[in-house]
Amino acid sequence: MEKQFVVGVDVGGQTSKIGVVNARGEVLARSVIRTDTYGKDAAAYMSALADAIRACVEECGKTGEIRGVGVGAPNSNYYTGQISYATNIAWAADGIVEFSKILSENLGGVAVSLTNDANAAAMGEMAYGAARGMKNFIMITLGTGVGSGIVIDGKVVYGHDGNAGELGHTCAVRYNGRPCGCGKTGCLETYCSAMGVARSAREALELSDEPSLLRGVEEISSKTVYEAAVEGDALARRIFEYTGTMLGRSFADFVAFSAPEAIVLFGGLAKAREFFYDAMVNAMNENLMRQWKGKVKIVFSQLKESDAAILGASALAWEL
Amino acid sequence: MEKQFVVGVDVGGQTSKIGVVNARGEVLARSVIRTDTYGKDAAAYMSALADAIRACVEECGKTGEIRGVGVGAPNSNYYTGQISYATNIAWAADGIVEFSKILSENLGGVAVSLTNDANAAAMGEMAYGAARGMKNFIMITLGTGVGSGIVIDGKVVYGHDGNAGELGHTCAVRYNGRPCGCGKTGCLETYCSAMGVARSAREALELSDEPSLLRGVEEISSKTVYEAAVEGDALARRIFEYTGTMLGRSFADFVAFSAPEAIVLFGGLAKAREFFYDAMVNAMNENLMRQWKGKVKIVFSQLKESDAAILGASALAWEL
Repeated sequence: MEKQFVVGVDVGGQTSKIGVVNARGEVLARSVIRTDTYGKDAAAYMSALADAIRACVEECGKTGEIRGVGVGAPNSNYYTGQISYATNIAWAADGIVEFSKILSENLGGVAVSLTNDANAAAMGEMAYGAARGMKNFIMITLGTGVGSGIVIDGKVVYGHDGNAGELGHTCAVRYNGRPCGCGKTGCLETYCSAMGVARSAREALELSDEPSLLRGVEEISSKTVYEAAVEGDALARRIFEYTGTMLGRSFADFVAFSAPEAIVLFGGLAKAREFFYDAMVNAMNENLMRQWKGKVKIVFSQLKESDAAILGASALAWEL
Repeated sequence: MEKQFVVGVDVGGQTSKIGVVNARGEVLARSVIRTDTYGKDAAAYMSALADAIRACVEECGKTGEIRGVGVGAPNSNYYTGQISYATNIAWAADGIVEFSKILSENLGGVAVSLTNDANAAAMGEMAYGAARGMKNFIMITLGTGVGSGIVIDGKVVYGHDGNAGELGHTCAVRYNGRPCGCGKTGCLETYCSAMGVARSAREALELSDEPSLLRGVEEISSKTVYEAAVEGDALARRIFEYTGTMLGRSFADFVAFSAPEAIVLFGGLAKAREFFYDAMVNAMNENLMRQWKGKVKIVFSQLKESDAAILGASALAWEL
């Protein structure tokens, strides 16, 4: 009989979260280790991770019943199983870590599959969430940055080199666009991420004398803009409408590419949906070709936020 | 033994071209019928087409050896086998024609597969042309309009509804963009098609008094702009550089989506490549993320122009 359980691992800059998951997307046991206490010693981290996975599997009595381990991590490549030049992770910042290979060895040969966070999120929504039953959709993660995972015919698109799905770095504004961490300007991420929202607010405050609850705030973040919007602040609400408009316009171009059934949104910023949803949907439909107007769904993740990253990563392992 | 020959049909507004093709992409026999002499009588056209196909197959002695018929046609849907609301074809302008179903019946049950011209072109390049051996590439057809066919993991992307791959209608210019026939503004097609080039030239001539060979020309077309560029006309050459820049910028966004190995160009405008190639490649690389700079090939179709449409359509039939 095929093994009925998988492990999901979400490698973040500070912590790595581990979960044992069944086919219904229930997390049977959880564990967490630090990512940032191993300095540049990748081997030490990889060994600690394997120990934590083994303990977590044992805790729920599934030793020997694990089909595979799925891992979501920054700067990771599905084809090669490597993490490379991940600036927020000391042990992977300066070179290439053979993540899948080493972890599999440390776990006595259990299969390991690796991809980036947004692709893992897409897998999670397809396996257990808002995209269940869908074969064609685009996952957009609205967090500190804007990530994406594209699913066509039921499969995540990795492209020729494993790096496909960088929709946060498509061009939203061509002239005088904001500089982006990626080295380009005008990227969608510079407008529609949590950072982008804070930046839009700071710019708007500088450009006028309009009264706003945000004027007193020492450090403006997407959270403070959200709180001001909740209080009815007109400037804060316009920032979210602007963000929604930028998202919707970009979505229209994404639809022209792969004609998805839906766009699925996830991430911290999605919590402010009430303030950007209408502008987003309207801008998308205004910029869609006739055959798609009013036909492409925009839905939100249905996974519990605390489990979403683990579930997404675990979904990778079902394919092993 | 599997049947070793296929038929390709290219349905254009004026004529429909037919060819019998072998696995090496050689056209063994050709035929052509009018598309535009049947008025609104789709049945009469479909019957004449079936007769012409049968005669063409008989001519090269392959009766009974045809695996299937592949058809490239405007406004056609791979999933449904229908041509719908094709404005340039009288018998398909006002409604839906069950093209694949009717043609298959008229041919005694031979399988028929239908898709649009650009998807067929992509199939043709993959089967016999510049994309042989590639699993991930994007076909861009630069003709009267700008069409596209996207190949991921060796398969044309049709999307949820069969309409994927409308990259000519992604946004190249957001503000004050040119109105497009599709109802939107700023579409890539309004700048980088044959029509777009002529329009750029007319605009440039109006905006300055710069001397140009084009000033005497009664009706400016992409062909007259090309001829002026060949003669060394500075304004005409700048138009092609502008066209190349617009193409390259858009290509960078397409790469961020599907990370293709190459972009393959085809169509009348591609003949002027010497005047836009450098600008196109430079603009693409300037707008690509680090991991792709200098790594994505731009290649030109290797199919003989007169046969390309037939070969593209025929390639569909190998999958039947």
